[in-house]
Amino acid sequence: MGSPELQHMAAFYEDMAAKFLLTDNIGVWRDISESLHLLASEPEGVTYREVDAGGVPALWAVPAGSSSEHVLLHSHSGGSVVASPWMDRKAVGHLARATGVPALLVDFRLAPEHAFPAQTDDVRDAYRWLLDQGYEAAKIATVGHSIGGNYAVNLALVARREGLPLPGAVLSMSPWFDIALDNPSIDGKAELDKMLSRTQLTAFGDLMLEGTGVAKTDPRINLQHADLAGLPPTFVLYGDQEILTDDSERFAVRARAAGVHVRLEVIPGGQHNFLFGAGKVPEIDEAVGVMAAWLREKLGVPAS
Amino acid sequence: MGSPELQHMAAFYEDMAAKFLLTDNIGVWRDISESLHLLASEPEGVTYREVDAGGVPALWAVPAGSSSEHVLLHSHSGGSVVASPWMDRKAVGHLARATGVPALLVDFRLAPEHAFPAQTDDVRDAYRWLLDQGYEAAKIATVGHSIGGNYAVNLALVARREGLPLPGAVLSMSPWFDIALDNPSIDGKAELDKMLSRTQLTAFGDLMLEGTGVAKTDPRINLQHADLAGLPPTFVLYGDQEILTDDSERFAVRARAAGVHVRLEVIPGGQHNFLFGAGKVPEIDEAVGVMAAWLREKLGVPAS
Repeated sequence: MGSPELQHMAAFYEDMAAKFLLTDNIGVWRDISESLHLLASEPEGVTYREVDAGGVPALWAVPAGSSSEHVLLHSHSGGSVVASPWMDRKAVGHLARATGVPALLVDFRLAPEHAFPAQTDDVRDAYRWLLDQGYEAAKIATVGHSIGGNYAVNLALVARREGLPLPGAVLSMSPWFDIALDNPSIDGKAELDKMLSRTQLTAFGDLMLEGTGVAKTDPRINLQHADLAGLPPTFVLYGDQEILTDDSERFAVRARAAGVHVRLEVIPGGQHNFLFGAGKVPEIDEAVGVMAAWLREKLGVPAS
Repeated sequence: MGSPELQHMAAFYEDMAAKFLLTDNIGVWRDISESLHLLASEPEGVTYREVDAGGVPALWAVPAGSSSEHVLLHSHSGGSVVASPWMDRKAVGHLARATGVPALLVDFRLAPEHAFPAQTDDVRDAYRWLLDQGYEAAKIATVGHSIGGNYAVNLALVARREGLPLPGAVLSMSPWFDIALDNPSIDGKAELDKMLSRTQLTAFGDLMLEGTGVAKTDPRINLQHADLAGLPPTFVLYGDQEILTDDSERFAVRARAAGVHVRLEVIPGGQHNFLFGAGKVPEIDEAVGVMAAWLREKLGVPAS
């Protein structure tokens, strides 16, 4: 079941899930979710800067000596309802540092105050802003975990649809693709997953789409039903304890069938949003190294 | 009543106080309190590093180009029961940047798991660790807000008692000195203070001292009853909307009578823990500039 540190993550998740059950106040849910930052250590040598990214608030995480030409455009987790760039700041700082590339963490609007597609619109607008700043699309990777792992792929599909140049690579961690929750692992792994449950994901999906007329199977948000042809090189990683295991595995099968270059890796003993363990959990630091090497290759980051 | 940004702080506090009332779960209180970091902007050019400060976990916030000889030893707010260095990271980062001096934010143990004097022991141990690292006491300022504003002064009293060299300066913001809540402003300003209440401070005081046999009037934690003679130069700032107004004003009177060099400033329209507005609220940025200039003078930080 992995290192003691990996097991600590599962225990932390379990405590957090219990706190969520104490209230149905979304503001409090948001505060509870932010505590996940505690799982990651402070990445050294990283500075932060808030920026207006074309009307979308965002946070730069800039490792010392990192590339001035490349960007990791990151979308946080939280089912579109909770969380912020500050929850992910430290974990993504580790990934940015290992890659030698600054990360731009998008502070997209949250549901239910802002229903779908506010979130994917914001990610797209931040991407457009990067292009307007002179960054080459091929030197931008879209990155994210959980619903943010959906948005990382989604951005490429939106770009294809809207005639924007595609990002150079997509890194999708613990993605939530099937908003309809039709996959067997949702129930089959219920005992193993210490963060997520069918109940909670159902609530997040409801809040995300409330009043929009968009179905949970709509391919604009349910990427298990989307046409994946033409995606850039895509790296999907997930923990084998996740109820969203099938989301990753089925995506890989479908994307490969559509001719996409897909790399799929599983983290044994890994929980959902494994990235939170960056800097503290050996298995996750190893995964960060693997992801960083892949990103450097796909984006063409020169050896420093 | 001050700038729109200052008024926004009051509204944010009001929302937060309402969330506290939804639960009596201390874990959830801790998560709620951390959201206060949202009031401050990211200070640019600051890097962070976790450190074991003589057995006490702590967080360095190091502004680019800052002094290598001086330190702001910071204690966070939260009544000894909630909060962490991460709640204060951005706000203290602004103060450190304006001062040109790194801050060491102490992650002291919390009550009720660790009752008094665990907190002041931890601050003292972090201070001793700095001395062991070769920092001169005269080049260290102890800094903090709310109960941390108590600890900032308390450290100097502990140092005096234990024969350690005294810090060069003390900066105490929105201090909570009178744990017994005997001051008239506790009720007199109840309508104005959007964060604190007699009820909440009573609960924090109870949790802090539970099972210790230490009275709420004990001069080791209630500095309104402490002998203040021999304190280093001390700067106390508070907002005039605070129920703790009298804590600051009475401290200044008593400290001056004991021969201490005390500077006292009030922030008109300011709420408790005004420092959280750093980087976003004009009145607070002005106060940060004033505090930074005072710290530089008292610590002898050379012009950079």
